[in-house]
Amino acid sequence: MRINDIIKAKRDGAILSTEEIDFIIDGCVSGEIPDYQLSALLMAIYFKGMNSRETADLTMAMVNSGETADLSGIQGLKVDKHSTGGVGDKTTLIVAPIAAACGVKVAKMSGRGLGHTGGTVDKLESIPGFRVELKKEEFVDIVNRVGLCVVGQSGNFAPADKKLYALRDVTATVESIPLIASSIMSKKIASGADRILLDVKVGSGSFMKTLEQARRLATVMVSIGESLSRRTLALITNMDVPLGNAIGNSLEVIEAVNTLKGSGPSDLTELCLALAANMLYIADKGTQSACLEMAKYALYNGAAFECLKKMVAAQGGDISYIEETDKFPNACYYRTVVATNSGYITRMDAESCGVASAILGAGRAKKEDKIDYAAGIVLENKTGAQIKRGEPLATLYAEREDVFDKAAEVFLNAVEIGPQPPESKGLILGRVE
Amino acid sequence: MRINDIIKAKRDGAILSTEEIDFIIDGCVSGEIPDYQLSALLMAIYFKGMNSRETADLTMAMVNSGETADLSGIQGLKVDKHSTGGVGDKTTLIVAPIAAACGVKVAKMSGRGLGHTGGTVDKLESIPGFRVELKKEEFVDIVNRVGLCVVGQSGNFAPADKKLYALRDVTATVESIPLIASSIMSKKIASGADRILLDVKVGSGSFMKTLEQARRLATVMVSIGESLSRRTLALITNMDVPLGNAIGNSLEVIEAVNTLKGSGPSDLTELCLALAANMLYIADKGTQSACLEMAKYALYNGAAFECLKKMVAAQGGDISYIEETDKFPNACYYRTVVATNSGYITRMDAESCGVASAILGAGRAKKEDKIDYAAGIVLENKTGAQIKRGEPLATLYAEREDVFDKAAEVFLNAVEIGPQPPESKGLILGRVE
Repeated sequence: MRINDIIKAKRDGAILSTEEIDFIIDGCVSGEIPDYQLSALLMAIYFKGMNSRETADLTMAMVNSGETADLSGIQGLKVDKHSTGGVGDKTTLIVAPIAAACGVKVAKMSGRGLGHTGGTVDKLESIPGFRVELKKEEFVDIVNRVGLCVVGQSGNFAPADKKLYALRDVTATVESIPLIASSIMSKKIASGADRILLDVKVGSGSFMKTLEQARRLATVMVSIGESLSRRTLALITNMDVPLGNAIGNSLEVIEAVNTLKGSGPSDLTELCLALAANMLYIADKGTQSACLEMAKYALYNGAAFECLKKMVAAQGGDISYIEETDKFPNACYYRTVVATNSGYITRMDAESCGVASAILGAGRAKKEDKIDYAAGIVLENKTGAQIKRGEPLATLYAEREDVFDKAAEVFLNAVEIGPQPPESKGLILGRVE
Repeated sequence: MRINDIIKAKRDGAILSTEEIDFIIDGCVSGEIPDYQLSALLMAIYFKGMNSRETADLTMAMVNSGETADLSGIQGLKVDKHSTGGVGDKTTLIVAPIAAACGVKVAKMSGRGLGHTGGTVDKLESIPGFRVELKKEEFVDIVNRVGLCVVGQSGNFAPADKKLYALRDVTATVESIPLIASSIMSKKIASGADRILLDVKVGSGSFMKTLEQARRLATVMVSIGESLSRRTLALITNMDVPLGNAIGNSLEVIEAVNTLKGSGPSDLTELCLALAANMLYIADKGTQSACLEMAKYALYNGAAFECLKKMVAAQGGDISYIEETDKFPNACYYRTVVATNSGYITRMDAESCGVASAILGAGRAKKEDKIDYAAGIVLENKTGAQIKRGEPLATLYAEREDVFDKAAEVFLNAVEIGPQPPESKGLILGRVE
């Protein structure tokens, strides 16, 4: 087998065999296939695609390229939830406790934020004492006792994906559905999920800019999961505008706690209930409507909030912060951004809001960057709201004053105000199983 | 300017600016752009193409990436002829003397053979004493005195092309018309030609497998030449079957000499007269028909042959070999390959004939390989001939006996004999100016 021939075959639209895909991934990890051949192949895949068999094979080859989590010590079905990345997306902090309160096991390995998107691990670390690095035994034990545990990704999962992703990032080959799908699914499968719920974001704040693209990505990921015997279901959800009102680490924890206490923003609450219900549904807990009822019950009777508190306690976090969110320190500085004209907010671009929040100190440009937990944005009005000139759009928080001008400029560029109310798209735009 | 953005732009079908193309070629030569980004860009160009402005810019950027030949010491118009590579293609040895005999200056830098194609420099080196490495002053002096001189490529011409070609070769991005065209034209322009005649081969023995592809390549190269003020004309010629009867270095010199003495194979003679006439035509020597008459006259009155002898003498070659080709040593061994059934030869695949010849010792698999000057193939019958089982197809020559079995097998696989004569395609299939 020669990599030149494989590149040529894919370039000409051929379907690669399982052996060819294994050969590529072996050569990628061993370094026997140089980067310049991998990147040419990635570009050929960008143009010619992969069918579902190839995509499943690529996923499994990437899983097999590294460690896989042994979670056999966990009793019961492990259901994972994965979002393709959004702005203000604190759903894991709400959905996982609801699902756990309903008897599903959530053994979650989560990432840190990069660029305009936040990461669940960073958000949890804003709680004093919270530990995201646990030994495997402790992780398994907490899941068994509490029903959920959220840790950072520590194992050497899917190293082929890490290498290919780094290459894709600098060769304009990120935006390929089979490559995105296999990258996500390989990490989910390596980290031990039995069932997988996907939250595929569509809109300005996510990779997928159109509903059709998002539906294709969702369909490919569900097909991979099914091929590899992991029941998978995807919701397609709107990410034109940030989710909820808070963007930033402790700001989002506070909003998540409020939501678990029944007083969260309606869009966030609605989406969390839908996600939790579908986690229960794929864990065979009942019909769709029965699962939604269960999720609502666990949320509104406080069982889900109890679950979160137990998890925080088990992972060393100071639960007084969760019980009394006023304890979270405020940022040193804040600035209110007001509407520059009157009308309806017709657009509040999620990606730009994420960028503004990162400028304020809530995110990272590079992996090594430090983040300020209290920094971020609280939206006072969102898309669809009627607003008068001079009324507040949002409050920006930061630990330094010198970032406000730039952040406010980026934020204001993300907002459009017009004479007519915008068409409402809804929050949950599709479902693929 | 960021290379990521340029790759992405080309991937999405954008037209690159002159500045972007210069940036790519600068970064390629300096090493600032890593190979993995170049190869992704090459694959994007493979899929999305380049328009004529981009292709001319790429050509000129590659010319400017290295040295250019200063041939200002040569009096008169320098016309170059370039063939896109064929099997049995000894036309330079015939065409250049005809053109020189008619008053055109031919200052030719030529390559060595690789793979299934031969190189003019190797063929000339089969003449004892012939020197292909000359100082610039000597090269210029011989062109001025004799009208022609053929040397090896010595200068650091178009180093960006060398690097990109090496990368294309291992990333399945060779077969891209703008990349092929700019690669060829950059070397022609760097080596100092004022006017350029292209012989674009089409058929099994060449890169271009269809007439349409060849016409596109020819059109793009002519357009590059015209954009860069080098008058360029292309003939599209048939390379389904080897040109003439001889394949191999001294075998081809002998056939070229016979042709210059007026007793060459008819296909070779016809093509050489057409090429020579067009060299005269683009050198403003007259109308097409007047140029053809001039070329014929120079061939049949012996003036062209005199020119070749003078060039061989000037470059240190023993002209007694040219005057009396029997002096060329025979190969130690030969074997006759006969027809395995009766009928018409319907196919004699040029590429496979070239491969068989290389196996016999006439060609190289790697740059460093030594070649046997007397090795090769003399075809006794070609496509279209009626033949009986047991009658000779060809004689194979080699310095070792152990290569015959493999070479004969490859050669026989290249030949098909059927009940009906094949349709004749003709030799000159198109003309682009």
